[in-house]
Amino acid sequence: MTSRGSGWRRAGIDVGGTKCLGVVLDDTGEVIAEHRLPTPKGAEAIIDTLAAVASALGEYDTIGLGVPGLITRDGIIRASPNLVDTDNFEVGRLLSDRLGHHVEVDNDATCAAVAEWKFGAASSLDDFVMVTLGTGIGGGVVTGGRLVRGTNGFAGEIGHMVVNPDGPPCPCGRRGCWERYASGSGLARLAREAAVAHRLRRVVEVAGGDPERVRGEDVQVAAREGDHEALEVIDTFGRWVALGLSNLTNLMDPAGFVLGGGLASSADLYLAPIQRWFGESLYSPHLRPHPSLTFARLGSKAGAVGAALLHDVH
Amino acid sequence: MTSRGSGWRRAGIDVGGTKCLGVVLDDTGEVIAEHRLPTPKGAEAIIDTLAAVASALGEYDTIGLGVPGLITRDGIIRASPNLVDTDNFEVGRLLSDRLGHHVEVDNDATCAAVAEWKFGAASSLDDFVMVTLGTGIGGGVVTGGRLVRGTNGFAGEIGHMVVNPDGPPCPCGRRGCWERYASGSGLARLAREAAVAHRLRRVVEVAGGDPERVRGEDVQVAAREGDHEALEVIDTFGRWVALGLSNLTNLMDPAGFVLGGGLASSADLYLAPIQRWFGESLYSPHLRPHPSLTFARLGSKAGAVGAALLHDVH
Repeated sequence: MTSRGSGWRRAGIDVGGTKCLGVVLDDTGEVIAEHRLPTPKGAEAIIDTLAAVASALGEYDTIGLGVPGLITRDGIIRASPNLVDTDNFEVGRLLSDRLGHHVEVDNDATCAAVAEWKFGAASSLDDFVMVTLGTGIGGGVVTGGRLVRGTNGFAGEIGHMVVNPDGPPCPCGRRGCWERYASGSGLARLAREAAVAHRLRRVVEVAGGDPERVRGEDVQVAAREGDHEALEVIDTFGRWVALGLSNLTNLMDPAGFVLGGGLASSADLYLAPIQRWFGESLYSPHLRPHPSLTFARLGSKAGAVGAALLHDVH
Repeated sequence: MTSRGSGWRRAGIDVGGTKCLGVVLDDTGEVIAEHRLPTPKGAEAIIDTLAAVASALGEYDTIGLGVPGLITRDGIIRASPNLVDTDNFEVGRLLSDRLGHHVEVDNDATCAAVAEWKFGAASSLDDFVMVTLGTGIGGGVVTGGRLVRGTNGFAGEIGHMVVNPDGPPCPCGRRGCWERYASGSGLARLAREAAVAHRLRRVVEVAGGDPERVRGEDVQVAAREGDHEALEVIDTFGRWVALGLSNLTNLMDPAGFVLGGGLASSADLYLAPIQRWFGESLYSPHLRPHPSLTFARLGSKAGAVGAALLHDVH
């Protein structure tokens, strides 16, 4: 990456549905300061909170911001389902004015991709896709050594790729989006369907007895005990993850995928089924190298670290 | 595009399932020579045919080749379902040796994208996706003003994006690929299903009376007469096309799509239903500019013209 000389301090803030996490990186990419505050409701309160986080971080030379949803290249949030009252919110300009620093803004999964690209699991790759498996699915795409932004800055909304037009409804207004199956909430939905159909006895026990209240975490607990029905749900889940990865392979032909988000913390449970189904669902699997599948290295700080690096990739 | 000085002559050959079409472009992009021969079976015979086409084209300064299927960056065909006995066929090296000219090779839909980008419907776009709707669906992707190749050169295989894992089997070995619905053969399949279920009376008449023999062309004939059932099939077809385009929009955020291939010659029948369903299936349609939908301008020569331009984009 571009060297800014020794002592250069990059600040980044990741705006999540529940908290805003700020970090400062030194010029080797180490996190040397960190601060978090709860995410408030409404555009004005968010600016106040971001200014407070930035101030608590101390000195910095550049600052970037990661936000969920559709973000324009000049820092306007067009739509962000997890932030209240923020449609058409000019967060970039307003925060720049408040801080007296130009704030680069991008989508949070794009930021995570930048972080893994520069200092994490994708550091040697010119072509890869970052897939964040959380409540939904976010994505960041690098091809030919460059970040894909799209004409408005909206590229990488991979979670809303429709993989079954008769599937369950998605908050986006359509049916059968990939994230209805292959995200944390997708796993929970697959498990609840099985539980309501009187399967998953152990998982329901772990969940406290109500099949309707089964969560992804309950499936994980039972799966770690070796429960076969829980492992079957994880296998089905892995198959859906693999289906989307193989669609993305057909499109982008990446050298690898980096899987991040909340589910990455239980990589040991998911990697084998995803890998097996992925190998089977590739187009001409015997005639092509298979993209590598690795889990993210930067954990829950990836968004903030990537936000701090946005000035280097813009 | 890069100027090569006046009098520079670019040759390009497009290898199709039935014919090899060669062209020579002058430095303004005009086709000044053209030759075609039937595509033979087998790697050795294909090299002989390509050498004969090249020789019939006369003088040229550079030459490129478009081939269907998975093609590596250095011109090896890994898999090409429509060419007989060509797996792992080093067409680039063998033809370069034969002609004494370095031959650039790429996927045929990628070539069509290059042609429309430089001299056709996408000439002002830095971010667009070329979608060739023929027997199958091919694709070429340009983002941030650069052609997307992928790590092996296999990017743009958009026809094998799975849009319904329980859908009809695809020759690629999986089920419910986009091209099972939204290509020429997809249209024919949708029509046959309706005909076998005793609908599409007029279309079956046009087809000669046998519901099992209905083709896309028969649907077009009846639709042009105003037959409601035929128009319904085209509407359903348009919905499937739009579904894939909206998936691609979520991924790449293009400024526009260029629709090419055989179906582009009946653009008047397809554009309205595709456009309507596309507007409805976009993510946050009221908060974003809608990508433009245009039909290809270069017709059946797009592959050969784009092949002739490969030296300029590599």
